Amino acid sequence: MQLPQNNETICAISTPQGVGGIAVIRLSGPRAIAIADSIWRGKALADTPGHRCRLGDITDTDGNILDNCVATVFRGPHSFTGEDTVEFAVHGSRYIQRALLDTLIDKGARLAEAGEYTRRAFTAGHLDLAQAEAVADVISSNSRAAHRLAIKQMRGNFSQRLEKLRDRLIDLASLLELELDFSEEEVEFASRLSLRELAKQIHDEVSRLADSFASGHAIKDGIPVAIIGATNAGKSSLLNALIGDNRAIVSEIHGTTRDTIEETIELGDYHFRFIDTAGLRHTDDTIEQIGIERSRQAIGQAVIVILVIDPAAPLDPDILTTASTPLNATPRPGDLIALINKSDSAITQQIDTVTDRLRKFRQSPNFHILSASSLTGQGLDHLHQILVDIAQREEGSADEGLLVTNLRHAQSLRAAAESTARVIDGLDANLSGDLIAQDLRQTIHHLSAITGTITTTDILTTIFSRFCVGK
Amino acid sequence: MQLPQNNETICAISTPQGVGGIAVIRLSGPRAIAIADSIWRGKALADTPGHRCRLGDITDTDGNILDNCVATVFRGPHSFTGEDTVEFAVHGSRYIQRALLDTLIDKGARLAEAGEYTRRAFTAGHLDLAQAEAVADVISSNSRAAHRLAIKQMRGNFSQRLEKLRDRLIDLASLLELELDFSEEEVEFASRLSLRELAKQIHDEVSRLADSFASGHAIKDGIPVAIIGATNAGKSSLLNALIGDNRAIVSEIHGTTRDTIEETIELGDYHFRFIDTAGLRHTDDTIEQIGIERSRQAIGQAVIVILVIDPAAPLDPDILTTASTPLNATPRPGDLIALINKSDSAITQQIDTVTDRLRKFRQSPNFHILSASSLTGQGLDHLHQILVDIAQREEGSADEGLLVTNLRHAQSLRAAAESTARVIDGLDANLSGDLIAQDLRQTIHHLSAITGTITTTDILTTIFSRFCVGK
Repeated sequence: MQLPQNNETICAISTPQGVGGIAVIRLSGPRAIAIADSIWRGKALADTPGHRCRLGDITDTDGNILDNCVATVFRGPHSFTGEDTVEFAVHGSRYIQRALLDTLIDKGARLAEAGEYTRRAFTAGHLDLAQAEAVADVISSNSRAAHRLAIKQMRGNFSQRLEKLRDRLIDLASLLELELDFSEEEVEFASRLSLRELAKQIHDEVSRLADSFASGHAIKDGIPVAIIGATNAGKSSLLNALIGDNRAIVSEIHGTTRDTIEETIELGDYHFRFIDTAGLRHTDDTIEQIGIERSRQAIGQAVIVILVIDPAAPLDPDILTTASTPLNATPRPGDLIALINKSDSAITQQIDTVTDRLRKFRQSPNFHILSASSLTGQGLDHLHQILVDIAQREEGSADEGLLVTNLRHAQSLRAAAESTARVIDGLDANLSGDLIAQDLRQTIHHLSAITGTITTTDILTTIFSRFCVGK
Repeated sequence: MQLPQNNETICAISTPQGVGGIAVIRLSGPRAIAIADSIWRGKALADTPGHRCRLGDITDTDGNILDNCVATVFRGPHSFTGEDTVEFAVHGSRYIQRALLDTLIDKGARLAEAGEYTRRAFTAGHLDLAQAEAVADVISSNSRAAHRLAIKQMRGNFSQRLEKLRDRLIDLASLLELELDFSEEEVEFASRLSLRELAKQIHDEVSRLADSFASGHAIKDGIPVAIIGATNAGKSSLLNALIGDNRAIVSEIHGTTRDTIEETIELGDYHFRFIDTAGLRHTDDTIEQIGIERSRQAIGQAVIVILVIDPAAPLDPDILTTASTPLNATPRPGDLIALINKSDSAITQQIDTVTDRLRKFRQSPNFHILSASSLTGQGLDHLHQILVDIAQREEGSADEGLLVTNLRHAQSLRAAAESTARVIDGLDANLSGDLIAQDLRQTIHHLSAITGTITTTDILTTIFSRFCVGK
């Protein structure tokens, strides 16, 4: 039986807004075929089997021919939404698209809400919630790596992984509950030691998944890179050279706070968001505090920091310390790239001296030192390679290739990790099985929320409102 | 047998540019199904009957899953292009659209040129040239009336009409040629008088169609309306009131000369393009010559002129004469709307006086006089109604409901009218049948060029290059 809200037949333009060769208007719900037939002149859609298309004319509300088009019939449950669906592929004029929608609404359909088709697919059980959310991610992906992550999630890899975790938790819980049933007899079916071992494994796995959000989020939305350095170090010309050299897609994104402007560059399979900090000004050879603070903020948002150094100028220890912040990040360090600029004009000895000082400053696989020239382009390939290597390492850090890219999932996983930690604490404190079982159920609850096995209408509404209309 | 250029399989994004729920990528040509199958993971498309769709995965060049999507198979000749066609309805991300195109090109398809699908439909004989051109018009139509004209033409109404004319011309020619065969015997099979009668009918019909281009063009691209008047007559506030009152779609279109800015307003089924002229400045109570010149230019572009009059100011006979230019237009007059503004504040007697003077100035069904107030909105409904009535009259002026909207067609019809005129002159001058037959063949040639019965590759290339890619 269908849920009450699905008694309504919905319609929307599913293709991008604007004018094109064709546009697709999708109609879904119990009356989809009847409404479609009411404006159709051609072989009846009611007599058309599913997955079949017909050529015919559609009319407007006044019965005038609106277009000659292809209508494709999908019959529930064998459709995306699980309901009867008709898709009209019309000529993509603004007028036809608008008039067809108006006509369908006039004939009894309702304009679909954002994400309503996918929500119906979820309700019909064709997708779980994590998969449904991945549909929106697939659509908004604009780098190969972001696409790769979203497709994995849409295809259910993440859901299957959570399913396995849940199964193990349910095993654990049932052992504990068996213990409770026989509590009078003081039987311990579940060895406390092996229970603890299992809980620890699950805790670590859930934590790793939650931690992967930092990388997953960066790859999905663009890896944030802060470029810092003194104003005359060649920060801007480096960025320009990097853009020009790679003929990359460049766009200006206004930060949510509207006070930073970012450049997005595509390198390899990845998008990098370069956070443009104001250069650090030297006043009487000391770096202004305000400049340091600005860099600190940029570094706070970044996964990678590029410190641009002019080898002819003195190396400031304060800024070097600030720049190295990502190296100390937990649970996993970020990267610092010290780029000795102006290799074209600098004296070799100066470059060597700075390189030596940097090498002595810190030893870390995440600390990269290179010399380059934004003027001649020398060394930029190397920088490009370091950035892509870091991105690949981030993507490769995934547990069984899975990176969490969704904040809601990360929060649920974090909550699940916390309740599993309480399970472990309970076992260590030798608490009774029923108390431990409560925390276990909490963990199962948090994991179930991700795939939508349990969810509230409010959560669903919030999730699907982020979709575009027509999907 | 297919023409050489159609040995190539072409691909393009057929839906509007951008991100959306779904996007459609179309593949057409002899290898369409083979190329599609090479990236398809699902039930083989080669085994799929026409007009049938399948759900499956598509892969990128490296064999990675690119998307889960619906593929629809159309088998030639039962497809738009007449060739085997596969349409992929993918998730509408920029990345997927781009990657799928890249993959199809990698597998042997070629990016379609603008209008190439429709050109192939023409080559396959599915559409004649006038119908093919109408496809582009249908897509670019943004008013109900423009859409109505384009749909008629796409459905072949115009072509059928031309076909009838051609048939009559061929009758005429064969009668003349019969006469030639028996010329030695001085037999006149075709009565010269009835031949002349027939030629005259055809000439008038072709001329009417050619003349309809003025109206057809205006309805298709927006009916040009010039608003002229003294600066303090309330020209701008009238336009603003008209826009606000009708909650119409308003946009700024930069004129091709980039020195005029137009407002496009939708009233009823029509788009009107209001040509904004600088107000006419009074200097010592005479209108500056430069102002008159500016108005004259605006009037030259307009089908309708609105002369805004302040009843408290003296009525200038020069500007009235200039404004009435459309009333004298040939072959059909345009319209002049004299709008006595400020009806809210003006003294009734002033309005009456001006109205009287205007009535005496000119008597014509195309001369409309009304009083209105852009401040209170009084009279604007009346203005709105007059504008829509004029537009309806223009559309209704069509011969059997056909208005020519395409410049190429109008030029061919004009040429056909001229050669038919020569036929009539020849008959009047009692020229020999072979000379007259030559002009008749010219007429048939010009009409055939419209539907593409005879065309050169150059003409086809010019026509289809105006299409969007993907159609």
